[in-house]
Amino acid sequence: MLTEKLKHKIDFKTKPIRALGTLEDLALQIGNIQNSLSPSLRNPNIVVFAGDHGIATQGVSAYPQEVTFQMVMNFLQGGAAINVFCKQNQISLKIVDSGVNFNFEANKNLIDAKIDKGTKSFLQEKAMTQNQLTQCFEKSESIVAELFEQDCNVIGFGEMGIGNTSSASMLMAYLCNLPLEKCVGRGTGLNDTQFENKILILKKAQVFHGKIKNPMEILQTFGGFEIAQICAAMLSAYQKNMLILIDGFIASAAYLVAFKINPKIKKNAVFCHLSDEFGHQNLLNYLQAKPLLKLNMRLGEGTGCALAYPIIQNAVAFLNNMASFESAGVSNKD
Amino acid sequence: MLTEKLKHKIDFKTKPIRALGTLEDLALQIGNIQNSLSPSLRNPNIVVFAGDHGIATQGVSAYPQEVTFQMVMNFLQGGAAINVFCKQNQISLKIVDSGVNFNFEANKNLIDAKIDKGTKSFLQEKAMTQNQLTQCFEKSESIVAELFEQDCNVIGFGEMGIGNTSSASMLMAYLCNLPLEKCVGRGTGLNDTQFENKILILKKAQVFHGKIKNPMEILQTFGGFEIAQICAAMLSAYQKNMLILIDGFIASAAYLVAFKINPKIKKNAVFCHLSDEFGHQNLLNYLQAKPLLKLNMRLGEGTGCALAYPIIQNAVAFLNNMASFESAGVSNKD
Repeated sequence: MLTEKLKHKIDFKTKPIRALGTLEDLALQIGNIQNSLSPSLRNPNIVVFAGDHGIATQGVSAYPQEVTFQMVMNFLQGGAAINVFCKQNQISLKIVDSGVNFNFEANKNLIDAKIDKGTKSFLQEKAMTQNQLTQCFEKSESIVAELFEQDCNVIGFGEMGIGNTSSASMLMAYLCNLPLEKCVGRGTGLNDTQFENKILILKKAQVFHGKIKNPMEILQTFGGFEIAQICAAMLSAYQKNMLILIDGFIASAAYLVAFKINPKIKKNAVFCHLSDEFGHQNLLNYLQAKPLLKLNMRLGEGTGCALAYPIIQNAVAFLNNMASFESAGVSNKD
Repeated sequence: MLTEKLKHKIDFKTKPIRALGTLEDLALQIGNIQNSLSPSLRNPNIVVFAGDHGIATQGVSAYPQEVTFQMVMNFLQGGAAINVFCKQNQISLKIVDSGVNFNFEANKNLIDAKIDKGTKSFLQEKAMTQNQLTQCFEKSESIVAELFEQDCNVIGFGEMGIGNTSSASMLMAYLCNLPLEKCVGRGTGLNDTQFENKILILKKAQVFHGKIKNPMEILQTFGGFEIAQICAAMLSAYQKNMLILIDGFIASAAYLVAFKINPKIKKNAVFCHLSDEFGHQNLLNYLQAKPLLKLNMRLGEGTGCALAYPIIQNAVAFLNNMASFESAGVSNKD
């Protein structure tokens, strides 16, 4: 059995049993995914999906909607946190227009997967049509297929979209069957009054839509285009047997939908960072997921993936390159 | 004031206020240390100090004493965890013979700072003489001075020494004035009987030596040569205004002594990893220190420093390279 062989290889490295803790778990997981005693991480990519949200006009965010397209421009110019972290950690960065409320000029660094110029407000109707949801899946499949053709075997997923913590909270409340109070946080920094307003608005939406059970219908009802595309891209990445890096609250909500559609995806998922956004801890508890980092960040963009990636590289490196007790001539415990 | 200017620079990066959490704290700390709005990390080094312990013959470790010199050989051959992590993260690695019970052949990669072939057992006498302690400080000062001359401004400290969790526990119990039960763990993996024996032996040593208040005398009584040299090297690194990376339980105990000697050292200290070794959490609580990582490791060697270093690099990178709201044309919160 490969698992046993991997455990043996890990246990006979020159260190006490389990002394590398979480890195041993990572090495075992990645070895199992790649069905190899000497796995490798190749051409890592972080893909940031951006989209606008009908709900953003209801005062659920501390920032105006235009910040979505402005931040996409910032990504393209290399000035955002995710640009800096990807460059620092030698990760390729792709930016996707999933549905931003702006007409971008053609740009070789921007992948055009635009469904529409923002979703509808889920206060009055479903955020997207069934046809739009299908388009999200098709476009993501081709994005992941192209990366796979470039011999990429590890993808992190990030997002940008003013209003998208509201969308993620609704997905979480419906799919985890939790009260909204356990799923809603302050996003980019709401004050007390704005925060109460956000909960009130989301409760209204719950009343309007009533019970929904099907994950695809829940995604169609509350999802942003960027969230639906991330969910679809994760499922595609699993089909291609890639390592899937999960970022913060919104990316985890997209993963939650993917997990409900195909629970096997968990085998390939690494949870990178526990966000300070309230709700993320509850979501990770629900998913029984242990994040690698807790750095009190709450930014999204895939920043947690970028910062966790060196740890994952180190886990693979120790598995491949550390000496064993035997090869190093070190006495093992009795 | 530089602190205010640094905070302003951080707050006007294209992200919500505080959205980069711990990385913002790091950027502020490093800017303040270097007295610069654009700090830099240059020629990072991890220095692993190795020494043997008289107490190791009392059955306080799961491994035989010979493992200390065997692991030094492993470091020199590049096979240990710290070798792999330093290579992966582009950190220079130095190995120091502080007092290993072995005659090494001359090796350009091994710094000879040997005081003796191991300390005395602190069950019957002080671990080292006052003169030996003075030598530890002199040798460390010259090691750090040489790195400083090579334009290194960030040092992580690691250790290897069978029996040195016992030494660290005694330092902690005396300097934090805590019962031994809060300071002693299972080290490299003692079973229940061995663990009870370890506590019993350390309690005997407490009775034998009685009350000691002076940090230098406590270090002389219970310290290993490697611990004393790490303590001294940290104090020297502070004098040279370097960034000081603190690893796990033993390195933290060495830091504790340094902190008692010069509390200002805290300004330059970054705590890298909360070890699984019992006692480390209590020690960090006492020091009011928040570690960057918690990866369930308990290996020492400076491994926590090596794994945390990319995070620190990313903190400096965002401070230097991220766009501001103004430069990127992104709307800020009202």
